Amino acid sequence: MRIALDAMGTDRAPATEVEGAIEALRELDSDIEIVLVGDQEAIEVELARHEGAPLDRLHVQHAADRVLPGDAPAAVVRRKPASSIVVGLRLQADGHADAFISAGSTGAVMAASLFVLRRLPGVERPSVATFFPTQKKPVLLLDAGTNVDCKPRHLVQFAHLGRVYVRDVLGVEEPRVALLNIGEEPGKGDELAQETYRRLADEPGIRFVGNLEGREIVRGDCDVVVTDGFVGNVLLKFFESIAQFIVGLLESELRRADVGVDLKEAFRVLDYSEYGGAPLLGVNGVSIICHGDSPPKAIMNAVRVAAQAVRSGMVGDTAAELARLRPDEETP
Amino acid sequence: MRIALDAMGTDRAPATEVEGAIEALRELDSDIEIVLVGDQEAIEVELARHEGAPLDRLHVQHAADRVLPGDAPAAVVRRKPASSIVVGLRLQADGHADAFISAGSTGAVMAASLFVLRRLPGVERPSVATFFPTQKKPVLLLDAGTNVDCKPRHLVQFAHLGRVYVRDVLGVEEPRVALLNIGEEPGKGDELAQETYRRLADEPGIRFVGNLEGREIVRGDCDVVVTDGFVGNVLLKFFESIAQFIVGLLESELRRADVGVDLKEAFRVLDYSEYGGAPLLGVNGVSIICHGDSPPKAIMNAVRVAAQAVRSGMVGDTAAELARLRPDEETP
Repeated sequence: MRIALDAMGTDRAPATEVEGAIEALRELDSDIEIVLVGDQEAIEVELARHEGAPLDRLHVQHAADRVLPGDAPAAVVRRKPASSIVVGLRLQADGHADAFISAGSTGAVMAASLFVLRRLPGVERPSVATFFPTQKKPVLLLDAGTNVDCKPRHLVQFAHLGRVYVRDVLGVEEPRVALLNIGEEPGKGDELAQETYRRLADEPGIRFVGNLEGREIVRGDCDVVVTDGFVGNVLLKFFESIAQFIVGLLESELRRADVGVDLKEAFRVLDYSEYGGAPLLGVNGVSIICHGDSPPKAIMNAVRVAAQAVRSGMVGDTAAELARLRPDEETP
Repeated sequence: MRIALDAMGTDRAPATEVEGAIEALRELDSDIEIVLVGDQEAIEVELARHEGAPLDRLHVQHAADRVLPGDAPAAVVRRKPASSIVVGLRLQADGHADAFISAGSTGAVMAASLFVLRRLPGVERPSVATFFPTQKKPVLLLDAGTNVDCKPRHLVQFAHLGRVYVRDVLGVEEPRVALLNIGEEPGKGDELAQETYRRLADEPGIRFVGNLEGREIVRGDCDVVVTDGFVGNVLLKFFESIAQFIVGLLESELRRADVGVDLKEAFRVLDYSEYGGAPLLGVNGVSIICHGDSPPKAIMNAVRVAAQAVRSGMVGDTAAELARLRPDEETP
């Protein structure tokens, strides 16, 4: 299989992407090939630094342009058709690649993915999903900020998108789906949560385990958590900053006490680079979004996850799952 | 001044409350008196354990009943009029106390406070506010879960409630008010956030500093953050659990490495017991809610905060601030 990797997305592009790609080809299954998409010259300079890189499985697709932080996400396809994001996604849409990965602007990757890959039938709102670390396995939360002012039916769709992803990519047989809420009992929460609860409880194919309060996320007693993108985004960004804050408090205390402990292992569970990026679910293809400050390891993990999504037939499974749902645009 | 303290609220009631009250009287200003409200016999047994307690400033008001976890909050005033929560609040309403503190059920304290103390004119929805630790000073976030499905005008009222509290109780001269949102620019967010932004930008008396993303809370660059109670509650509960989770990761790693470091100082900033409870704002009185698992220090800090609220005239100042707002029930 072939995975298109935007080489111009990270803060240290394309060095990080090239290093991550080489690491992935060395570590992961040998049926994986990677197409680095971006400034050919810059990519080749980076490739030359890595002796013995598996060049037979490493291709370069030139893209003359790149998306910059100031670019309006919605205008990228029209205004920057030669950008690495658009060129990489087109490789997949045209059948020259099976998946796309980028550490560029989340908004731009999303908008371009929607335009180039298109939504799957039955999906009104594709959704970016992210993993939260827990005491057990990481939990997939969606929506992570793509969709605000959601209706109950959107959250039900998120439940299906998340459930198929976790089953196919993580191998969880019957994923448990929970609704983020401000109380445990049915009937708790705002109007959206109350109505979504009723629908999820009746939804075929969904193993609904009920409401989940903010404090319970960390317990890891479910596999998928659905919520409106406003809540998901605030929570995700808060989590990333508070984790850093707490680790910082601690490191300065250990420094003060002059204690040399390597906390890398303890905090590995908090490290997003372990999770392989945030998938955009509900489009007709595999599109994975990584942090702009991803290290090579995060890129490698995104390749691993993308390959697993391709291998499992996640997109086809999602399409089949959503096709079973009656189109129901009239319901709120 | 006299502060009514529900002695039956904590998990180890009344021992914790009695200890916290004695500590407060010893540490804080000598014009403070405390009325312990609850089972007189149990309270006196506890008091007898503390030699040299300042009994001249420590009173007991018997309450024959107590609110239990299963009690429906809205029914407490009617069904348990002799509970320590209702009796304690009535002391304040009748002029025998200037403030009320409880570590009992948040819902019950809130419902009973609303009924007994009543809302201030101009306040449609009283709001529980809580402090979040930051890299600088703690930041007051409201609503913390009292009010869901808020309208923009409710969030504007929260802004006023929070601003007066922070100014009077924390002594911040011109508190900076931010709107929790999923992007920095105006126009970001869901419908509620977009319209609230417009209103806060024009609101007299509010020093509005714009949108604040989830990741920026921890920076502490504002004094008050307003948001809907759904978001606030999810965030607050998530924060408490994730802080515990991360500290736990760390402690087990340090144990494994056999390193004896006292992390108490490093994590002091994360410790809610430093913050003195969550005030219910917008009622005609001072009502402070503490965690059920509060240690005596948290009770003492709640007394400190309640005393400061009384001394500063917080309730009168809030009434004056809200009276300036035009009643505007028609606007969304």
